[in-house]
Amino acid sequence: MSSDKMADLSTAEIETLKAFAGTLADSAAQVTLKYFRHPIGVDDKDKGTGFDPVTAADRGAEEAIRALIEATYPDHAIHGEEYGIKETGSDFEWVLDPVDGTRAFISGLPTWGTLIALKYKGEPIIGIIDQPYIKERYVGWPGGASLNDKPINTRTCKSLNTATVSTTDPALFPASERPSFDALLAETRLVRYGLDCYAYAILASGFMDIVIETRLQPYDMMALIPVIRGAGGSATDWKGDAPGTCGHLLALGDAALLGNVQKILEPAL
Amino acid sequence: MSSDKMADLSTAEIETLKAFAGTLADSAAQVTLKYFRHPIGVDDKDKGTGFDPVTAADRGAEEAIRALIEATYPDHAIHGEEYGIKETGSDFEWVLDPVDGTRAFISGLPTWGTLIALKYKGEPIIGIIDQPYIKERYVGWPGGASLNDKPINTRTCKSLNTATVSTTDPALFPASERPSFDALLAETRLVRYGLDCYAYAILASGFMDIVIETRLQPYDMMALIPVIRGAGGSATDWKGDAPGTCGHLLALGDAALLGNVQKILEPAL
Repeated sequence: MSSDKMADLSTAEIETLKAFAGTLADSAAQVTLKYFRHPIGVDDKDKGTGFDPVTAADRGAEEAIRALIEATYPDHAIHGEEYGIKETGSDFEWVLDPVDGTRAFISGLPTWGTLIALKYKGEPIIGIIDQPYIKERYVGWPGGASLNDKPINTRTCKSLNTATVSTTDPALFPASERPSFDALLAETRLVRYGLDCYAYAILASGFMDIVIETRLQPYDMMALIPVIRGAGGSATDWKGDAPGTCGHLLALGDAALLGNVQKILEPAL
Repeated sequence: MSSDKMADLSTAEIETLKAFAGTLADSAAQVTLKYFRHPIGVDDKDKGTGFDPVTAADRGAEEAIRALIEATYPDHAIHGEEYGIKETGSDFEWVLDPVDGTRAFISGLPTWGTLIALKYKGEPIIGIIDQPYIKERYVGWPGGASLNDKPINTRTCKSLNTATVSTTDPALFPASERPSFDALLAETRLVRYGLDCYAYAILASGFMDIVIETRLQPYDMMALIPVIRGAGGSATDWKGDAPGTCGHLLALGDAALLGNVQKILEPAL
């Protein structure tokens, strides 16, 4: 975040809010783990031809998080995937995706995560990617990033031909973007699919180099940004600007790749 | 397996061999966990244009397993991915893939597994899919299947339009097979990629319905079969016959789907 905004918040304040964000993740985990790997009803939010599953785990976990925020910081704004936006005019806004990767969740795969972000004056300053089944909590803040309280760092990757790249589903790229994604794949060494937020956690830990996605909502993105940046990576839209409303997210473990990746993506922009 | 061959082995003998297979998985885990999520050298076994990574974890884990077999059952045959075939003329053959899902392994993803199978007179009777980072051990034998010693079962799925399907990478299907796979996808509800052996473990646990793959080697397949069958599922080639040398594996949580799936796959056969 810009240094003038940072100066508004003391390290102690950030620590307090980070600890509170951890409490939110704990409360969500109590709900999600009750449902994970148990038979669960699945509703379909998509009214068209797709399949957009949502479960009692999604709803219950967001309810638990929102109740804690309302009790502790009733003036803070909230934007959650399942229960929408609460506007308050506060500088603080919590952005929540109680189960990112619901398809993985309902398939018994441990690569979903609970996403909790705190924005301050419009910028994400604290992010949590929590995977309670594997017991991995990734946290990012302006000073760093950690996995279960141990510092994590992205890895060096100077050349695309040694890079590992990930996206959740190549079929999500519209026809205007798909050729650029395919061109990126052709330049890189290894691709992994289907990981949702977990790919960004792995990038922040230094085991992937590029994660690229399209059509993301704010609640899919905001928690990821402080984790990626805190670990030393770059989190931008496909143009290299701050991720905004276009739904494009490009995470790089090594920002040195940005120029080459952008050249490949340019036709899609 | 056919009942005449089964009659050769007592329950006590099977229990002893199952316990020994668990010891093999323990010894492999000691090696793999030393390397997982640590920076690791990657060799490329593919001498063409592909990327077929192999690491010290693959080699070290197979060495550890083979040493134990040689010490305890020196007369047993062995077929391992990294160190090949040891023929002895025994009715027993251990089939090993020390790290199935090396791409996941080197990407820090916990969906690889150590595969250990015991064949008796040509048929796989004991199988282990071990994921030591998450601490999940899936075991199958003629009487059942378990996850960490608790029984597991596949789930009922009577209709393709509610089925979850998985394959490791759709790009692995040759042009003659890809349309059939795409046709199968079009009939099913949800697809998950990139899981290697872990998809079969999840199917055996009752959270997926169809796993289909091509170009598999014996060491990719043999350990999966007792786990799938022991959990109540069906493990065949794409024609519904015993999986053989053609590299086709079709796992169904509910064998009632077999007829409909085969109709879709028929053009590829």
